[in-house]
Amino acid sequence: MPKKSGSSIRLAHHPCVYSFAAVVGSKEADGPMGKYFTHTEQDPMLGQKNWEQAETRLQQMALQDALHNGCLQQDELDCIIAGDLVNQCTSSTFAARRTAVPFLGVYGACSTMAEALLIAGMLTDAGFTRYAAAVTSSHFSTAERQFRFPLSYGGQRTPTSQWTCTASGAVVVSSQGNLPRIVGGCIGRIVDLGVTDATNMGAAMAPAAADTIFRYLRDTHTKPEDYDAIVTGDLGNIGSPLLYELLGKQGIRIRDVHHDCGAMMFNEHSQDTHAGGSGCGCSASILAGYFLPQLRDGRLHRMLFAATGALLSAMSSQQGESIPGICHLVELTA
Amino acid sequence: MPKKSGSSIRLAHHPCVYSFAAVVGSKEADGPMGKYFTHTEQDPMLGQKNWEQAETRLQQMALQDALHNGCLQQDELDCIIAGDLVNQCTSSTFAARRTAVPFLGVYGACSTMAEALLIAGMLTDAGFTRYAAAVTSSHFSTAERQFRFPLSYGGQRTPTSQWTCTASGAVVVSSQGNLPRIVGGCIGRIVDLGVTDATNMGAAMAPAAADTIFRYLRDTHTKPEDYDAIVTGDLGNIGSPLLYELLGKQGIRIRDVHHDCGAMMFNEHSQDTHAGGSGCGCSASILAGYFLPQLRDGRLHRMLFAATGALLSAMSSQQGESIPGICHLVELTA
Repeated sequence: MPKKSGSSIRLAHHPCVYSFAAVVGSKEADGPMGKYFTHTEQDPMLGQKNWEQAETRLQQMALQDALHNGCLQQDELDCIIAGDLVNQCTSSTFAARRTAVPFLGVYGACSTMAEALLIAGMLTDAGFTRYAAAVTSSHFSTAERQFRFPLSYGGQRTPTSQWTCTASGAVVVSSQGNLPRIVGGCIGRIVDLGVTDATNMGAAMAPAAADTIFRYLRDTHTKPEDYDAIVTGDLGNIGSPLLYELLGKQGIRIRDVHHDCGAMMFNEHSQDTHAGGSGCGCSASILAGYFLPQLRDGRLHRMLFAATGALLSAMSSQQGESIPGICHLVELTA
Repeated sequence: MPKKSGSSIRLAHHPCVYSFAAVVGSKEADGPMGKYFTHTEQDPMLGQKNWEQAETRLQQMALQDALHNGCLQQDELDCIIAGDLVNQCTSSTFAARRTAVPFLGVYGACSTMAEALLIAGMLTDAGFTRYAAAVTSSHFSTAERQFRFPLSYGGQRTPTSQWTCTASGAVVVSSQGNLPRIVGGCIGRIVDLGVTDATNMGAAMAPAAADTIFRYLRDTHTKPEDYDAIVTGDLGNIGSPLLYELLGKQGIRIRDVHHDCGAMMFNEHSQDTHAGGSGCGCSASILAGYFLPQLRDGRLHRMLFAATGALLSAMSSQQGESIPGICHLVELTA
């Protein structure tokens, strides 16, 4: 039976990342990571009638591509674990409603892929599922009009703001298969240091990332240099230095192995995306498009995937609430 | 290691329902179940500045009461698994933000307690958690203004509509303890038969309840009469007969052992609640307030808790979408 080690989790049977896929929009495809994604959609509406249906379609495509990459049929899945940013997570539930696959809805804002992947890993490790899919999505236009302004308003964006990615990632976890493997993880705690600026979510999330990474390194008696990559998503260009500062106070220096999915997604100089990418699909698509292939091909051997989420709503900000952050972590090995 | 049985789940180590609590508002306390709840709050604002903060407070109180009933300290919890109906689940995340307990956010609309309890059961059964809390809440006023109309508008409610309960339930699952025990469960599939009437959610959810209950009975080779109670939440007075009809077509008659939390919560004749109660807190509070004590005291021996959710948003209804339903199930024994 797997045992707890401090507040971190070890998976005794090392479930396998069986297959995966990343689908993104055209702006994401134009960025520095563009060539790595499984599939690019040029039409931001994906042929649908509204933005919410477009995001639903994006998530369906990511799961279909992941199943196809693993030569799996949909009915071989024991569970879909999915979430997104849209109110009541309808992108995920509507994407799954024609599948007839058991479904667990999860919500961790932009940390959702790490939460879903960790739950998929635990359920598969314990034998409750043979094939479990972790799926998340975001769409610039669904997020922009829900959290910020009507798209046609053309509001000015602050320098600290991040750009919600039009992207979806799907990862199928299985008890069978070879590489990469999920060996452990850490369920995030909610950390709120009182940041109230909803246009600076990197600052709101960095303390949660520091808390989770610190706890995992402590519980596993490892150091940053034991990993080829410690990947956060999505602290962006503002949140990442704050993470270095917070961990630095604990005597931990991760800068040499750190990558942030939000900072990787766009060219900040040419793409007008300010502090970087964000959204449930950002870290999910970079994990599935860029990092998992590197683990599969042996170019990376050991990495931490620590996705971060800002747990605000449009209403909570209007009510003057500060922004709680959370960061879930998954350790992957080749 | 626990094994899958069809699409249902058996928990090999029978984790224990260690402690629990239910906190409700004054209207719920005035209903036929009033005397069973742990705690009643007369002030619908719970001393807070807005309805969302009031719901957050309700959830904090339910967890505190459950911990107190189990003589547990908060820091003994390995995980809180929580969700609610408010956009981005802020009632749950804000309730947990001062706890420093690892947190998994889940979303299953009014089925959330069954989803959270099933995940808590699986993680504890597998040894990932020693104490895991499943917590959900709803508040009439947060739901009404988010999903329907401003409270001051005074809109007329249709005969099929349900009344969102001001209620929260918390259940702590542990590998240690005596009774009651979680022995199995079934992760719900999303079922959408095309119901588009957002004021008739019982009809939208009944097909999902029928699907999950049918699958669990089939997979476990059991019949309704093998259980002292098959409890749904919240089909209400419209959805319950539809469930009988759908299961009847499969040759399954559950009427003699069936109870519905939505139908139990209010007196439909004197409380003007129309088709019954609803909300993440409805089935959670009746489970924790009424059914779990009966299992603990040996008055019930074996029951199914099958909470249902309508996976709509205000926007999805406005966009003409039908309402997907889901039903997660947990089997409990004394």
